[in-house]
Amino acid sequence: MQKLDPGKKLAILAAAKSRFYRYGIQKTTMQEIARDVGLSVGTLYLYFKNKDEIILCCTQAFNDEHRQFANAILETNQPSDEKLRRYVLQRFRAAKATREGSDHAAEIARTVTQLAPKRIEEETALMLEVITDILQEGCTAGIFYHVEETDVEVFAYAIAYFFPIAGKEPHTPPEEQKLLAVVNWFIHQWKRA
Amino acid sequence: MQKLDPGKKLAILAAAKSRFYRYGIQKTTMQEIARDVGLSVGTLYLYFKNKDEIILCCTQAFNDEHRQFANAILETNQPSDEKLRRYVLQRFRAAKATREGSDHAAEIARTVTQLAPKRIEEETALMLEVITDILQEGCTAGIFYHVEETDVEVFAYAIAYFFPIAGKEPHTPPEEQKLLAVVNWFIHQWKRA
Repeated sequence: MQKLDPGKKLAILAAAKSRFYRYGIQKTTMQEIARDVGLSVGTLYLYFKNKDEIILCCTQAFNDEHRQFANAILETNQPSDEKLRRYVLQRFRAAKATREGSDHAAEIARTVTQLAPKRIEEETALMLEVITDILQEGCTAGIFYHVEETDVEVFAYAIAYFFPIAGKEPHTPPEEQKLLAVVNWFIHQWKRA
Repeated sequence: MQKLDPGKKLAILAAAKSRFYRYGIQKTTMQEIARDVGLSVGTLYLYFKNKDEIILCCTQAFNDEHRQFANAILETNQPSDEKLRRYVLQRFRAAKATREGSDHAAEIARTVTQLAPKRIEEETALMLEVITDILQEGCTAGIFYHVEETDVEVFAYAIAYFFPIAGKEPHTPPEEQKLLAVVNWFIHQWKRA
């Protein structure tokens, strides 16, 4: 049996991603991907069973990059407020690149959501986790004060507007109780003399 | 020429609205609306030139109700924080009723946006205006402190999540500078000892 080459695997993923961005997922065939990397289709199938597997692997790489960037920021010596700015802006730019980097962003988002329905939730959870870490660090360092769990939640809602997903229908029904918590949080800030 | 009866006009709007909610705008005919109110189609056309005019009139009524409710809240003797809570929750319930009150909410939103493209902007502008009024009043009364223009903007972003529009594509591209302003606003709050 032919030995699989990790470098070739990366080349396949890069070629597939490039095709998905330019022509959409539906219009991309395994034959075309194989040709782009200079492989026979038979060999391509040794690496990936089908197109779905390639998509899932691309998605995983996307998540891994997020995690790596988060760790890199957390490990720097910058003050926590600067870490927070840098982290959120980097996520903004990554999301924007995904959204605007392809005319097929909506199709890609839809396909990924079908194949890995929890992916968006996981991304959001990771983002909240990183923000919480940075805020806690800031409190320990005496840079931030009065940071509670609600603060993270309100912050997440306040920035959610800036992270739309291409072609996505409005999210799950928003809850009145959560809205009230957001309003109360702001009122609390404004009441502080 | 036949004299137009304001009561009849309201009945037409109510009948049309009910049909739009149940069957959608496309599937509703002027004939059906006329029949529901017990008018001949000829008479209906004396009141409204076409279906678009009926839709615009319904939309106007929606805005008027918003303005009236806002004024009513502003005129009460409640403390400003309570006014803010009541106002935002009422808007939430009104938006929810529009969104969930019909299987055709997406079609209705799309049609209204086509006929009156500025309507959503106007609604948002009115909401910001009312929130600003309540906050200013709260500052004058010594209930709120440190409220600035950015506070209103950040608050608007924080609650925007709770006001999705049925079938609406993600809004106009979010701006990095505004996101940074939101992040900085929060950092400023957290840095206050």
